[in-house]
Amino acid sequence: MTTAEKTYDVIVIGGGAVGENVADITVRGGLRTVVVEAELVGGECSYWACMPSKALLRGTEALSEARAVSGAAAAVTGEQDVAATLARRDSFTSSWRDDGQVDWLRRAGIDLVRGRGRLSAPRRVVVTPPDGTTEVTLVARHAVAICTGSQAAVPTIEGLADVRPWTSREATSAQAAPGRLLIIGGGYVACEMATAWHALGSTVTMLVRSDRLLPGLEPAAGEAVADSLRKSGVDIRLCADVRSARREDGEVVLGTSDGDLRGDEVLVATGRAARTEDLGLDVVGMERSGYLDVDEDLRVTGVDGCWLYAVGDVNGRRLLTHMGKYQARQAGSAIVARARGQAVDLTDWSPHVATADRFATPSVVFTDPQVASVGMTAAQAADAGRAHRVVEYPIGQVGGARLFADDYTGTAIAVVDTEREVLLGMTFIGPAVAELLQAATIAVVGEVPIRRLWHAVPAYPTISEIWLRLLESYRG
Amino acid sequence: MTTAEKTYDVIVIGGGAVGENVADITVRGGLRTVVVEAELVGGECSYWACMPSKALLRGTEALSEARAVSGAAAAVTGEQDVAATLARRDSFTSSWRDDGQVDWLRRAGIDLVRGRGRLSAPRRVVVTPPDGTTEVTLVARHAVAICTGSQAAVPTIEGLADVRPWTSREATSAQAAPGRLLIIGGGYVACEMATAWHALGSTVTMLVRSDRLLPGLEPAAGEAVADSLRKSGVDIRLCADVRSARREDGEVVLGTSDGDLRGDEVLVATGRAARTEDLGLDVVGMERSGYLDVDEDLRVTGVDGCWLYAVGDVNGRRLLTHMGKYQARQAGSAIVARARGQAVDLTDWSPHVATADRFATPSVVFTDPQVASVGMTAAQAADAGRAHRVVEYPIGQVGGARLFADDYTGTAIAVVDTEREVLLGMTFIGPAVAELLQAATIAVVGEVPIRRLWHAVPAYPTISEIWLRLLESYRG
Repeated sequence: MTTAEKTYDVIVIGGGAVGENVADITVRGGLRTVVVEAELVGGECSYWACMPSKALLRGTEALSEARAVSGAAAAVTGEQDVAATLARRDSFTSSWRDDGQVDWLRRAGIDLVRGRGRLSAPRRVVVTPPDGTTEVTLVARHAVAICTGSQAAVPTIEGLADVRPWTSREATSAQAAPGRLLIIGGGYVACEMATAWHALGSTVTMLVRSDRLLPGLEPAAGEAVADSLRKSGVDIRLCADVRSARREDGEVVLGTSDGDLRGDEVLVATGRAARTEDLGLDVVGMERSGYLDVDEDLRVTGVDGCWLYAVGDVNGRRLLTHMGKYQARQAGSAIVARARGQAVDLTDWSPHVATADRFATPSVVFTDPQVASVGMTAAQAADAGRAHRVVEYPIGQVGGARLFADDYTGTAIAVVDTEREVLLGMTFIGPAVAELLQAATIAVVGEVPIRRLWHAVPAYPTISEIWLRLLESYRG
Repeated sequence: MTTAEKTYDVIVIGGGAVGENVADITVRGGLRTVVVEAELVGGECSYWACMPSKALLRGTEALSEARAVSGAAAAVTGEQDVAATLARRDSFTSSWRDDGQVDWLRRAGIDLVRGRGRLSAPRRVVVTPPDGTTEVTLVARHAVAICTGSQAAVPTIEGLADVRPWTSREATSAQAAPGRLLIIGGGYVACEMATAWHALGSTVTMLVRSDRLLPGLEPAAGEAVADSLRKSGVDIRLCADVRSARREDGEVVLGTSDGDLRGDEVLVATGRAARTEDLGLDVVGMERSGYLDVDEDLRVTGVDGCWLYAVGDVNGRRLLTHMGKYQARQAGSAIVARARGQAVDLTDWSPHVATADRFATPSVVFTDPQVASVGMTAAQAADAGRAHRVVEYPIGQVGGARLFADDYTGTAIAVVDTEREVLLGMTFIGPAVAELLQAATIAVVGEVPIRRLWHAVPAYPTISEIWLRLLESYRG
């Protein structure tokens, strides 16, 4: 088999949002760039994660908000049209066709090679096309960026793999609500999909190994989401032990410490694993699979020469689309700088390093209530030995929140560095808090002193007035 | 008539939100404080402005948002319950009773004297009770703060005063939607009340002297609100000249350059005037009425001794509740510092001066679309001779906005200082942008460098991702 060979400045393995963003930056920097993708260009986020999950959730949220305002509630007399919601979701995924994304690559001047990419030597990537046609060898003058992302990790429970469980992919792309949906897991995928499918008609049972939902976030977040899910009728079993799985007459049967549980589908949402199999990492002396360790500018740690980067989920730093895209901008800038023989600035907050990964990672869980958080939780500040104070305030006492919804219930939790007098972290729990988060992210990233934040007056009457209440509480 | 006399550290004339906040700060600072109020404690904002207007608007907004999501729209089959909306508005104004506010004063340790306050000599205020009982003379050891606010200015149009026009007070407290509502004015009160009463059943005609709505804001704001109001059926007449007004058989008849216009009520929303009549300002040598000029720490300019402050609308700096409350915090801190013999720091962004009045005043117009803005508009930056660049981006192209509403239409306009590379101002126009504003306010107030803002990653998929688009557009 003859192998065609083609030389580029930059090879990007993986054409999801992260790979696309690396390529966008390097092409803008004048570097010839090729993206290698075996599945759909656009990746997990576009087809099987952020976009479809939020499209499934948005209608439920909008109706819940209207029902929470007396006067408006009277107008909401019907039910959500499930078929229309699924159709809307399909439109956000372009019905799982990537023509639009491929077109975007073309217009951006980025080449695309379809197939699986594997390192065959330093700076060399062999691509095996999906149809088994001739392999292509790509050679990178400057950099290879691995942006292959992550996939659902299916735990080793007896029989589980054989019952064809849903992962986040099936949960976000299903064409009908299962009658009974079992969910193994209690993280954000589990919580969001429980919210979505319950609202669209499924009877949902969550089996959570931990003693709370949303571990890693402020404990109040998981408690609020659990309360709300339970009130809506979702059965949540904490500290649950799933021992086996089987299909019987189409039904899924999970063997648990509490006995058998039956459902129509089971969603496994217990974590993610790096997609690093068959990437040829042995070429750079790496034996083990798993997340790829990277330096501050996203270069794979321990690889000779400044050419191999791992960006996005695959490095395990922050498994969030927006953080992967952020890393892509930083790594892309570092690649361009090195290609031009310019210095790469490895100090915190430089354009070449992903400092926010460590200090200011925002995330939103689109449940009801939503959970929006950035930076350190109280527990993380304590673990890091930072002098800090935690300030909590019930969002429902803010005028803007009371106007937003009758009986608005929510909490804001600020973690303040008492030595430097800056914000270390913030968590908002409540309806429609997603858009409150960017203010906290800017405060954390900008290291804006508390003393100065007093001058950032929230407009009245908005929910953002919570900022004033938190400052007042901090002052005491 | 014998006059009782009572000595305090601080006398606050006017018990609206601003006066309450001055008193709160001075009492917390250990100063005996009395508030003088002739009407309802809580003031304009609580009973006849922010709270009732937003309560009137919120139901309409929530329904509009639900109707904008296919799938959810199917559930909105009924109409808003106008009586329930008015009842909800009444609950937000406590049905125009101030017991709750009076109770708050008591619990805060602030004395209340009901009546009109008037300076009789420096540091002396005579209060005439509403029932004509014995006058009380109050003496201030440290400070008198005038917090009397503003009132609607009724223009001198022939006959207008005699037709008992609505002002913002009647427009926010009316117990039924008038069949035909004429509105004179095109500012935020006019636009919000047109939006509210149109949605609650009135046929609305706006007569606007200017050639656009919302003067003072980015021109795109007024255009977007005008387009939307017109589409919904509001008749907007720009460059309108109202010459006379009369009542005929209960109808209001306005004589305009286009002929007579008939309605059931007419709302005058053409501006505000300081409430400074009969305050005894001649005592400090001030003859003219109108807004009171103040120094940076809110002291009335040109008055001997550091004892007379004018805080909130009455100083004409920024006629917004939240800015008045901000000024109250700053002035209150200055009063406490001076009473303790401490230095008052008059530099920008100190705890004693209202710097944000000049550089970072946020405001939200609760129309559909909403308009949320802070800092300088492009025109203001040009007028001030600041080296700047304007960056615009259509919010509807952001994934989070498309998820929020089908056919989301909106615009973000950033004004960047190209010398210091910081944000000077931001305007968001679009549905539900009110809560996006605080992020911009913190960026402006914190003077966070653009270079650092790249690290403030917006969570995906939220509308806040507009920040990334604006940064990318600025980079070019």
